Amino acid sequence: MTRETLAVLGAGAWGVALANVAAQGRARVPLWAHEPAHAAALAKDRENRKHLPGLPIAAAVAPTGDLSCIRRARIVLAVVPAQALRSVARAARAHLEEGAAFVICAKGIERDRRHFLSEIVAEELPQARPAALSGPSFAADVCKGLPTAVTVAAEEEALALTLSEEISTRTFRLYRSTDLRGVEIGGAAKNVFAIAAGMASGRGLGASAQAALIARSFAELTRLGRALGARNETLMGLSGLGDLVLSCGSAQSRNFAFGQALGQGAAVKDASGGKLTEGAFTARVLVEMAQAAGVEMPIAEAVDAILSARLSVDAAIDALLMRPLKAES
Amino acid sequence: MTRETLAVLGAGAWGVALANVAAQGRARVPLWAHEPAHAAALAKDRENRKHLPGLPIAAAVAPTGDLSCIRRARIVLAVVPAQALRSVARAARAHLEEGAAFVICAKGIERDRRHFLSEIVAEELPQARPAALSGPSFAADVCKGLPTAVTVAAEEEALALTLSEEISTRTFRLYRSTDLRGVEIGGAAKNVFAIAAGMASGRGLGASAQAALIARSFAELTRLGRALGARNETLMGLSGLGDLVLSCGSAQSRNFAFGQALGQGAAVKDASGGKLTEGAFTARVLVEMAQAAGVEMPIAEAVDAILSARLSVDAAIDALLMRPLKAES
Repeated sequence: MTRETLAVLGAGAWGVALANVAAQGRARVPLWAHEPAHAAALAKDRENRKHLPGLPIAAAVAPTGDLSCIRRARIVLAVVPAQALRSVARAARAHLEEGAAFVICAKGIERDRRHFLSEIVAEELPQARPAALSGPSFAADVCKGLPTAVTVAAEEEALALTLSEEISTRTFRLYRSTDLRGVEIGGAAKNVFAIAAGMASGRGLGASAQAALIARSFAELTRLGRALGARNETLMGLSGLGDLVLSCGSAQSRNFAFGQALGQGAAVKDASGGKLTEGAFTARVLVEMAQAAGVEMPIAEAVDAILSARLSVDAAIDALLMRPLKAES
Repeated sequence: MTRETLAVLGAGAWGVALANVAAQGRARVPLWAHEPAHAAALAKDRENRKHLPGLPIAAAVAPTGDLSCIRRARIVLAVVPAQALRSVARAARAHLEEGAAFVICAKGIERDRRHFLSEIVAEELPQARPAALSGPSFAADVCKGLPTAVTVAAEEEALALTLSEEISTRTFRLYRSTDLRGVEIGGAAKNVFAIAAGMASGRGLGASAQAALIARSFAELTRLGRALGARNETLMGLSGLGDLVLSCGSAQSRNFAFGQALGQGAAVKDASGGKLTEGAFTARVLVEMAQAAGVEMPIAEAVDAILSARLSVDAAIDALLMRPLKAES
């Protein structure tokens, strides 16, 4: 089978992992890095030494600093940070083919304008067919060939089907959906909840409290998702519950690790260890969206309040876990 | 506040933990053990050396081998294995006060007769007011005073409210529900899914696959629960999703540890290490219930097939994780 041409934008851990996946069955997969020096290092080292040490970049992957590498790609995977997507999409406009699939692989909401990432794509890349890929997946697991299942969503069902066939491998499985917005909501919200779970872990609250927090987080996600038109099966699926469980359960998740550092007493400005923690950007806008929709999200609100230094971790835990006894809802 | 009289039936890890909780604010909490020698050892050692080493039994807890200890108790917590509940309930009938609350703290379905545990109570203890306590909680966490939140359910709302007030402490929080059947279904099913999650862990599939499996397990639980009349909020709550996440995420869960041993190649008869793994009893009856209700539960079916030696762990993993690409549902 000849696979459709594909390029990857963004050469962090997840971009490299997805480029490796795409290289199965393709002779050449351009991998664009924002910093030319980073592209050169990847080309020379044949691995991302910082984020995926010891995991080789597939031979077919071609790192480059030149955005025109997406010309002739029928599928572009956008794996840049959510807050950088608009500027990358804008720069890509001159290069992207008419009708190419532009697959958002970042998770978040634009902070300044409160836009979902697919809205950014619609504005900046009118020639693109937008889609999103999201689900429980650690880059290192994917590079090692461990079995992984994610959701690929596009409002056009035929596009979702094509993408699931064009990107899936034997161990990296894409299940298709037409609920693009539902997938985006789950991906954005889970980063915020992962910070909360990390805080609970950092404070040593134990596995029982952690599990209760995940269930309560899922209830918040479901309330928000329904209010914004997401489908139930999406929220309960790989990109919703699946990703929430993964992100809230492991220090391999950056947002969880960030929360863990906060729970152990680190200051907000030091807790990220220099790594990108999308949830820290998303918390505020998620809370604003929830308030606009009339939805209660006490856990997301607590994360936002802690990040804004309006609440301490201990006070938040008291408020969340020691709430008055009431009926479950 | 004077608390209502309370006795605990069953002196395993969870029985001891709940007796310790109940001892807060009570002068005396009888703790019945099935084996008189076990009761004597607990009374002498003041700890359950096998299951909770180093965690003391509260001074107010009075271990005994005499079932008449439940006389005068207005609340009885039944913390015996699910498959032993009928015989214990039958023996308790002569001793239980009229109108006493009988709170099922075991999780499972009676294998021989396919009865839910509350049905057993209705049959064997007509004088009792039935209830169930279930949720994400490791006995050791509870003994250490780590924050824990669970659901207490009774069809009588007033009883659920009373129990939530009578049993809650500052760190052990009971949220009330009137969906007794929904709580029972979640508690029974999660043990089966924990075996599946343990198998995936034992085979080294990685955190991403594990998270996908939990999401798919929750979808199965939801389908079965809805077919049997459980409420959505119960399934998504502490006793449903919360307990599922905890049991599927830690080798502290016996069912998970059992599955892990199977995944590492142990034979079914050796994998439990002599500990009770309720999910091994429940798998078959859960699958039969699902079939009778016309509900698909491929993960539960795979667990049952493996336990019955009709399927290997590897074949099950291939079937579950390498399914044909399809729409998410």
